[in-house]
Amino acid sequence: MDAYTPSERSQVRRLPKRAAYDREQVYSILDEGYVCHVGFVAGGQPYVIPTGYARAGDRLYIHGSPASRMLRALEQGAEVSLTVTLLDGFVLARSAFHHSMNYRSVVVFAKARLVTDPAEKLEALRAFTEHVLPGRWAEVRQPSERELNATSVLVLPLDEASAKVRTGPPVDDEPDYSLPVWAGVVPVRMELGEPVADGRVLPGVAVIDTGRFRRG
Amino acid sequence: MDAYTPSERSQVRRLPKRAAYDREQVYSILDEGYVCHVGFVAGGQPYVIPTGYARAGDRLYIHGSPASRMLRALEQGAEVSLTVTLLDGFVLARSAFHHSMNYRSVVVFAKARLVTDPAEKLEALRAFTEHVLPGRWAEVRQPSERELNATSVLVLPLDEASAKVRTGPPVDDEPDYSLPVWAGVVPVRMELGEPVADGRVLPGVAVIDTGRFRRG
Repeated sequence: MDAYTPSERSQVRRLPKRAAYDREQVYSILDEGYVCHVGFVAGGQPYVIPTGYARAGDRLYIHGSPASRMLRALEQGAEVSLTVTLLDGFVLARSAFHHSMNYRSVVVFAKARLVTDPAEKLEALRAFTEHVLPGRWAEVRQPSERELNATSVLVLPLDEASAKVRTGPPVDDEPDYSLPVWAGVVPVRMELGEPVADGRVLPGVAVIDTGRFRRG
Repeated sequence: MDAYTPSERSQVRRLPKRAAYDREQVYSILDEGYVCHVGFVAGGQPYVIPTGYARAGDRLYIHGSPASRMLRALEQGAEVSLTVTLLDGFVLARSAFHHSMNYRSVVVFAKARLVTDPAEKLEALRAFTEHVLPGRWAEVRQPSERELNATSVLVLPLDEASAKVRTGPPVDDEPDYSLPVWAGVVPVRMELGEPVADGRVLPGVAVIDTGRFRRG
């Protein structure tokens, strides 16, 4: 299996048994999430900004207004740390100390690059839409020239990344198993509610099928 | 209402109409989330690490192993940007460009300080447990001296923070409302699954009541 070689910065230091460096694992976590947290330094100050994203092959795309602080910092070639975290469950132990969470997370390290090629930019916008709702791109009006110019797209190569995963039950200290306390995992998942039309949907247009969403 | 005065770094630049600077809004988002993303700079490199947290009054606590990269960087007084993001829905418009997400996020800027006072440290550990499951602290074995020493707790004053919120339907370009495309919001929420006991729960111990969790 294709694996990342951990770098100084991508190597998981804490609880290395939870680390994973294979691309398949990294990609599957990225493909399941919807929001990433982008870390960058501007003026010596760290910023962490949540934003949408999409993966296409060995590249990850984010986008935003050209005027945003994030875009301005990143298009100048700043180093980025980008993290996606999926919360899978609450781990309830018999001692406060051993409480934990089950999760899957990915940290990507990269220098972002502004996408200038119009074809790659359009492909990235398609990927954003399809990442949220497969099939949506073909249903909606595609971007105009003006809209394309109003959007900046950044690409991050997925060359340096690591995953960290916790699964399974709590691990208690042996004497604590005699305590009359419930212990185990309460799973967490994302659920979709009933779609709420915006009031101007034309008669005869079917409501969106939430089964089309991932994790729907 | 008590309000933050936006600083150079905490002022929301992009889509300022979505910004909120009142403490009540900031606190309610922090209290609803479970995972924060902590951004810091170490050796010139930004890192973004997901971790649990808890708020107590005008302070936010995070914790971890004293050996972790994050703790080592932060306890030396590094600037921190800490973000909590709640995804509330997918906003489906008639054009690709106007697709969006409904969300609530908070960004906190602070210098972290290592908690050395044993009483404050214990209070923070109580807050972590109670943040995940109200009432849990009183049910479980409390931390031993050894466990307290194996945990580092950092405190961040909630003095400089901002919230950003998007709610409501998509906003399409007027001509696009004539398109036969479903548009509106598909709400997203966190759901809890059936608790999974760890196999060593004593006979007669009741399964955890998931109604006790926030958003359960």
